[in-house]
Amino acid sequence: MRILVVNDDGISAPGIRALVNELKKIGEVTVSAPLTGMSGAGHGLSINKVLRVEKQQFDENVIGYAVEGTPRDCAELGINAFMKNQVDLLVTGINQGSNLSNNIPCSGTCGAACTGLDYGIPAIAMSLDFGDEYDYSYSAEIGRNMAEWFIRQPFNRQFVLNVNVPNLPREEIKGYRICGHGGNYLYHQDLTPRYDGRYYYYDTSASEFSFVNMVENLEGDIYALHHGYITVSPIRLDMVSYGDFPRLQDNIDQFKY
Amino acid sequence: MRILVVNDDGISAPGIRALVNELKKIGEVTVSAPLTGMSGAGHGLSINKVLRVEKQQFDENVIGYAVEGTPRDCAELGINAFMKNQVDLLVTGINQGSNLSNNIPCSGTCGAACTGLDYGIPAIAMSLDFGDEYDYSYSAEIGRNMAEWFIRQPFNRQFVLNVNVPNLPREEIKGYRICGHGGNYLYHQDLTPRYDGRYYYYDTSASEFSFVNMVENLEGDIYALHHGYITVSPIRLDMVSYGDFPRLQDNIDQFKY
Repeated sequence: MRILVVNDDGISAPGIRALVNELKKIGEVTVSAPLTGMSGAGHGLSINKVLRVEKQQFDENVIGYAVEGTPRDCAELGINAFMKNQVDLLVTGINQGSNLSNNIPCSGTCGAACTGLDYGIPAIAMSLDFGDEYDYSYSAEIGRNMAEWFIRQPFNRQFVLNVNVPNLPREEIKGYRICGHGGNYLYHQDLTPRYDGRYYYYDTSASEFSFVNMVENLEGDIYALHHGYITVSPIRLDMVSYGDFPRLQDNIDQFKY
Repeated sequence: MRILVVNDDGISAPGIRALVNELKKIGEVTVSAPLTGMSGAGHGLSINKVLRVEKQQFDENVIGYAVEGTPRDCAELGINAFMKNQVDLLVTGINQGSNLSNNIPCSGTCGAACTGLDYGIPAIAMSLDFGDEYDYSYSAEIGRNMAEWFIRQPFNRQFVLNVNVPNLPREEIKGYRICGHGGNYLYHQDLTPRYDGRYYYYDTSASEFSFVNMVENLEGDIYALHHGYITVSPIRLDMVSYGDFPRLQDNIDQFKY
């Protein structure tokens, strides 16, 4: 099995190293990852930009490509250029911090994984919840086990698996939950203007957030993760809210243009 | 009515100027837009980056802020910093080229509009379809009319309106359609490695694309736009595919960890 591994925390992040160490046990791994951290890049791709690439020995048996681009650029280049369309599985992460609910559209970890949908390649996005410390060993094992399981499922090209692991000792993890949208993260940003000769803004409070409209049961991804469950959500590239069609249709008929 | 206007083609793009000229007729407009083109930035936001801002006179009555950041950064700064949370309506665009189906997650025009959902601000994303030429005058009128209509609807904080206008003379436009996901754009990229002392990739074929799994009726956004309809889609920040829950649930029960 030829496995492409991508992340958004950068090729030097510990999460991708832990993931590669586990995935090496089940396949031939190639790494394509941003040269530096690209958290928050979402599904962003570089248009009209030169993408610099440095090939490196990621570890003894794994070739790595450090890309000056977004996570999705890394996935595109990994599939098309570095692996010449010979990819059986795409795994992204392990992200430092969860990727849930309204964070999914702005998550580079999820964005890179969704590139698999364009090419019909099974893809899994792996994240470890926020915490004071990050030990990726257990979530990396989960990543390997999920990969072995998912690759055998007949529906594995229909959606991306978005997997979030609690930041807890393994004996405290309660199992898996299939979860939906669980509320909204709202970030508290420091948007005070600063001046060093020119005006700028620099947010120093990015880790502060609260939840709005949280689903208070295990069907919501935020609640389930925070209650000790590994959350698994099928993700597609469809953001249309079909439940809103009737009221929109009824009203747009009044609209004159 | 205090209106924030954001785009992803950059503050100098003609689409945003046409839009502002129309929206000035119905409210007090402030512009917050990227200094340079940020197409493809999606919902990306800048983390741990300094955001430079230059205040400028956008036109006689409109203040503009040119931001060295993503469209979503522009929307966040516009709402919080430049307009001090006094925003009644957020309109993004007019984008040069459509934003449909699987392009929505990687569209800066849509990403910036979705910032409105975080703050409970009604938001509309406006795009003009790809074409040999771009005359934004009619789509700008559509933007103003839709804004006047949408702001009066009781459900206007529940979802973003994603509006795409055909690139046709106004007499050839057939009306409005509420549309869902209409297939997948697949871009044909030139991913040949190049060398100038260091390796790089530079895509020179970004405008070449084909459609995969296209919905061949007017309920699909791609088909409807290409058949002369203005497409209107309600967008939420939920990418979970609920229809896939049963088969995933049935199968994950077999999965041992």
